[in-house]
Amino acid sequence: MRVLHHYWLSTGSRFSRLMLSERKLNVMLKLEHYWERQKAFLMLNPASSVPVMVEDDGTVLVGVWAITEYLEDAFPETALITGNAAQKAEIRRLTDWFAGKVEREVITPLINEKLMRRLTGEGVPSSTTIRAAMANLSAHLEYINHLAEQRKWLAGSKLSTADLYAAASLSVADYFGDVHWQDWPEAKTWYSRVKSRPSFRSLLSDTVTGITPPAHYTDLDF
Amino acid sequence: MRVLHHYWLSTGSRFSRLMLSERKLNVMLKLEHYWERQKAFLMLNPASSVPVMVEDDGTVLVGVWAITEYLEDAFPETALITGNAAQKAEIRRLTDWFAGKVEREVITPLINEKLMRRLTGEGVPSSTTIRAAMANLSAHLEYINHLAEQRKWLAGSKLSTADLYAAASLSVADYFGDVHWQDWPEAKTWYSRVKSRPSFRSLLSDTVTGITPPAHYTDLDF
Repeated sequence: MRVLHHYWLSTGSRFSRLMLSERKLNVMLKLEHYWERQKAFLMLNPASSVPVMVEDDGTVLVGVWAITEYLEDAFPETALITGNAAQKAEIRRLTDWFAGKVEREVITPLINEKLMRRLTGEGVPSSTTIRAAMANLSAHLEYINHLAEQRKWLAGSKLSTADLYAAASLSVADYFGDVHWQDWPEAKTWYSRVKSRPSFRSLLSDTVTGITPPAHYTDLDF
Repeated sequence: MRVLHHYWLSTGSRFSRLMLSERKLNVMLKLEHYWERQKAFLMLNPASSVPVMVEDDGTVLVGVWAITEYLEDAFPETALITGNAAQKAEIRRLTDWFAGKVEREVITPLINEKLMRRLTGEGVPSSTTIRAAMANLSAHLEYINHLAEQRKWLAGSKLSTADLYAAASLSVADYFGDVHWQDWPEAKTWYSRVKSRPSFRSLLSDTVTGITPPAHYTDLDF
């Protein structure tokens, strides 16, 4: 069976699970403490990063670019990057926005400060870093709000990888209690639409020892 | 005519130029001082990052993921991501390695410290940051050396986007004089093979005011 090497609060892992679930493809999850750089996992991915997907035939897909495009190629009947060249470009632009820019400016600092310091026992969270990440998050939420005002889904009229990555990222920030939804009504309506999809259910039941998400985290009517 | 909004020492811009040149596609370069966040450029790309490619029909491609996959779709006769699913996955894994990991760990800190501080007049270069970037660069060169020992091209037996991105990244580090080629003989042989390609010529003649590359930078027999 297909295996996804993942971590609960890795946005790329959540994004991959969402894509697989939306496509009705089965997968077995294998938890990786990627920061420990275990030998067996390094053999699979020398970067020791998640997600890594391994197909039944042994094909190894490392990272969200490889996983996304592989799924598009292998299962065109459930494509998530659809439309003409300009529409596909818009979907990839936004997917990349969340996988790259939002990850760098918001998610990685939050994970480092709020989770990794606890897991590795190294130092105390830097409030300066967290404040900067929160300011960046506001700017990105404003952009999502703006997109959601004009479009049903973030990249256009159809659900795409852009919505799934954006929702995966926001779900991680939301787990930490860092999203002030009341400030972004259009973003909230869009997120509530993604959150209600069957593909999202299993994500919301994940928990990480020692960090309890806020009450509204799993609430579909938040 | 096709336009590429670029910056001389942006690896993604260099990578896009290499792809276009390898495919014999014409392009007009438009220099962007992306850090100035000019209004006209923000309309094209709210992230104010390069590269951005605009096709004759107005299709806008933002970022290397969108540009790469668009070119693969639109010009299959000069594909750079070829082979079976596993081979394509390996090409995308490595392309992403250079566009993501190497960029974060090596190129962005070098650009910030050695170039941006000069351009914006903000502070003096941090020798700690530069030292960390150089240590990361060594680790990546060791990996490239290891790949080049076993394969003709980085992702396999054919030239691919992995070679073009890796070479684009190394050319930027080399411009700053930060690559000690003598330590990495296999990587050097591979880089020399990429550097000799006609697609690489125009890159090597680029210069940035105030920073002179080392003598070996343009030398094909370095």
